[in-house]
Amino acid sequence: MEVGICKQDMLQKKKNAVLVDGVILNGPIMDSKAGEKFVEEACKIIMEEVIQKANDVTEKVCEWRAPETLKKILDLEMRDTGESHQKLLQLCQDVIQYSVKTSHPRFFNQLYAGIDYYSLVARFITEALNPSVYTYEVSPVFLLVEETVIKKMIEFIGWEEGDGIFNPGGSVSNMYAMNLARYKFCPEIKEKGLSSLPRLVLFTSEECHYSMKKAASFLGIGTENVYFIKTDERGKMIPEELEKQVQRARKEGSAPFLVCATAGTTVLGAFDPLDEIADICEKHGLWLHVDASWGGSALISRKHCRLLHGIHRADSVAWNPHKMLLAGIQCCALLVKDNSGLLKKCYSAKAAYLFQQDKFYDVSYDTGDKSIQCSRRPDAFKFWLMWKALGTTGLEERVNRALALARYLVEEIKKREGFQLLLEVAPIIKERMMKKGSMMLGYQPHRGKVNFFRQVVISPQVSREDMDFLLDEIELLAKDL
Amino acid sequence: MEVGICKQDMLQKKKNAVLVDGVILNGPIMDSKAGEKFVEEACKIIMEEVIQKANDVTEKVCEWRAPETLKKILDLEMRDTGESHQKLLQLCQDVIQYSVKTSHPRFFNQLYAGIDYYSLVARFITEALNPSVYTYEVSPVFLLVEETVIKKMIEFIGWEEGDGIFNPGGSVSNMYAMNLARYKFCPEIKEKGLSSLPRLVLFTSEECHYSMKKAASFLGIGTENVYFIKTDERGKMIPEELEKQVQRARKEGSAPFLVCATAGTTVLGAFDPLDEIADICEKHGLWLHVDASWGGSALISRKHCRLLHGIHRADSVAWNPHKMLLAGIQCCALLVKDNSGLLKKCYSAKAAYLFQQDKFYDVSYDTGDKSIQCSRRPDAFKFWLMWKALGTTGLEERVNRALALARYLVEEIKKREGFQLLLEVAPIIKERMMKKGSMMLGYQPHRGKVNFFRQVVISPQVSREDMDFLLDEIELLAKDL
Repeated sequence: MEVGICKQDMLQKKKNAVLVDGVILNGPIMDSKAGEKFVEEACKIIMEEVIQKANDVTEKVCEWRAPETLKKILDLEMRDTGESHQKLLQLCQDVIQYSVKTSHPRFFNQLYAGIDYYSLVARFITEALNPSVYTYEVSPVFLLVEETVIKKMIEFIGWEEGDGIFNPGGSVSNMYAMNLARYKFCPEIKEKGLSSLPRLVLFTSEECHYSMKKAASFLGIGTENVYFIKTDERGKMIPEELEKQVQRARKEGSAPFLVCATAGTTVLGAFDPLDEIADICEKHGLWLHVDASWGGSALISRKHCRLLHGIHRADSVAWNPHKMLLAGIQCCALLVKDNSGLLKKCYSAKAAYLFQQDKFYDVSYDTGDKSIQCSRRPDAFKFWLMWKALGTTGLEERVNRALALARYLVEEIKKREGFQLLLEVAPIIKERMMKKGSMMLGYQPHRGKVNFFRQVVISPQVSREDMDFLLDEIELLAKDL
Repeated sequence: MEVGICKQDMLQKKKNAVLVDGVILNGPIMDSKAGEKFVEEACKIIMEEVIQKANDVTEKVCEWRAPETLKKILDLEMRDTGESHQKLLQLCQDVIQYSVKTSHPRFFNQLYAGIDYYSLVARFITEALNPSVYTYEVSPVFLLVEETVIKKMIEFIGWEEGDGIFNPGGSVSNMYAMNLARYKFCPEIKEKGLSSLPRLVLFTSEECHYSMKKAASFLGIGTENVYFIKTDERGKMIPEELEKQVQRARKEGSAPFLVCATAGTTVLGAFDPLDEIADICEKHGLWLHVDASWGGSALISRKHCRLLHGIHRADSVAWNPHKMLLAGIQCCALLVKDNSGLLKKCYSAKAAYLFQQDKFYDVSYDTGDKSIQCSRRPDAFKFWLMWKALGTTGLEERVNRALALARYLVEEIKKREGFQLLLEVAPIIKERMMKKGSMMLGYQPHRGKVNFFRQVVISPQVSREDMDFLLDEIELLAKDL
């Protein structure tokens, strides 16, 4: 069924100039040679200033400037006429110089860090191809890749089958799960809405990610209907407290429908006891969602996957390979145990212009109608290429090393006097480290305690030397406090 | 206040090897030189196979393979051990070969197309820097750029002030607007949810994007509470019909809160009469949202901005520069007229670990709490760099040319006999053009009419020769039908 193509057929034949509405329509108007040259020159800057410096600890993590100062340095205004390539390349240099180097070995500020060369190449490819993932017709490769990656992630969760979709962030994945659980609880909400229904209630730990509240608000459930469950001193949900709250909700006449457990909380990195929580969910007929956005990658490690023991009993899981596995922001999957088409039933709007049913191929590959988005980025692809490059054992090594480094740091902190006291001055130390640019580290108050630093270890470029540096640097910055 | 940094300070000092949990922690484990070489080699492939071929009409738009065939060609499986660089580069080649070339001058299939070299460079920069846009501390440049771009877009809408945020897609922007209108209507929905409230009702045209139904379902409003307003033969909402439906909703005892007008409908490209719709919204106290995802870019053209006459009266606008302006997927802004902090009040969850109030800089730059996302991509940046490069006049030229080409095509179709009849065989012609790879063009049925082709003109690489080719090619492919 292949149809030959004659190159001559497709060549543009020169024609007389046509003028419509004052516009000459013949020939393209872009100077593609100049454009390609610009891309080449810019790529050289990116290579030298970002990629080759990613591992260089002698570079600054950030070149701090206050907002008003930075506005003056960058020429932000867009004008009627364009700038020269030379000026634009200088702008690119400036953008790079004053941006935070999140791939620097001493960027410990967020739950992502480091650089993965394979994922980066995949991202360059998709930016150049500029695809949108909704139909097989326009995204054949990326849809097959997404299917493959989702299958593999489902294997690591331990389900026999399932479904899934990549989303713009773990917060959005959590929203998907909440809406899916609600649809399962009462499918007619899709058409009728929540008005005149009993109050829907969901449960999650007091250490959960803030996206739970955002989701409850966005989905029309209301933040007051998120019941926060007490945690133990380590930050894990206490199953007995969950049981109590479910019973309380029932007594109130509200409609419990969902428990969100967390595997890797944002501040303390705690893993909720999934098996015990799953027992309670089964008993009460509640959907179990696990927000493993941060901790999910531990599933890849045979040594540490026990942290998520019981996750195979979940109905849905959010897992972000852009965090501990370095797949690049954003790379976030929602995985669903159901394989009866629940995701599609819950989300479909059946747009006739996109999801025609009379296509000449198997339209079950047109997965766009499982999404709240129309255009959607091929985020699975960068994870796939990285996985191909490193193999499962390479990914496993990343997880094992990150957890070993964390353990090393804990032991070293215990050896150093004064670190307990330092906590009260976190904002001052933070200001000093930003202005020096030596490292970046986040802080926050927690449960009535004063501000403390949260050290995040992710990147394979990080070593015990960086852990030692971290402690020395905090001591140095706080010497006079 | 600058603090000097001594490079020597930051150098890693060699230390004795430390073994924790079976992992040696000294030194980084990645071979960065090999990684950099891989990136360089892959960039060469991207340059030659994607970027330099983007304007070449003798290349195929797509290399069609059925799903099962493509699965065999691509080695999709992820294994325990990684692949060699040579194998990976071949994989990259294959991915490119079998992906649709959305930047090909004859890709007319979707509401995006073409290549913009400046936007592409911006995307390479952000992929290399891997930022997330929520706090000034980690994204100083990208937050200032977003603020600047939003201000400029607001100028073109014609508001004196306003607010805004870039989102992962126009569908999500429409959801934001719907939730914002609801919050404005009844702020306590954020905490209490919709249960026990009267039925909220919104109005949009029957030609609106399918994201309206998705949004109503996701937000717990329910698809039945989207009242679809009749359109005229050109696809524009009929204001008298809107008035009738608002009155009907009031009589039913439901609570109308929002009208979504469309500026550039998906299938017919119709622009709703915004001024007359704004009159009705004012009369009834309804929020006016304009989904200008597709048509918003016409605001840049002094010749065509009259299509959106009255848009300054809207309360919110969705506008995707990744469509007609070629900013690259995704680049989607929601603009809001309110400047009293409504966006933040509606969306904030005040996460203490991210949005600390005791920071050493003005935390009003930490805009992350206006979003339903936590990690968020710096999508404004590519639009900004492109705008800097082309100037407003360059952007205007793109819009003017696209509309002139569309007009040219209409005139040419009128001259050709038989084009009316061809419509019934759209799926067959589509199959033939995909397998030949000569161009890509979307089709759909509409209002009881049979399938017809929707020709989308966007890219500045497209010329009248391509319009002529399109008509010749359809005739050729359908010769025997």
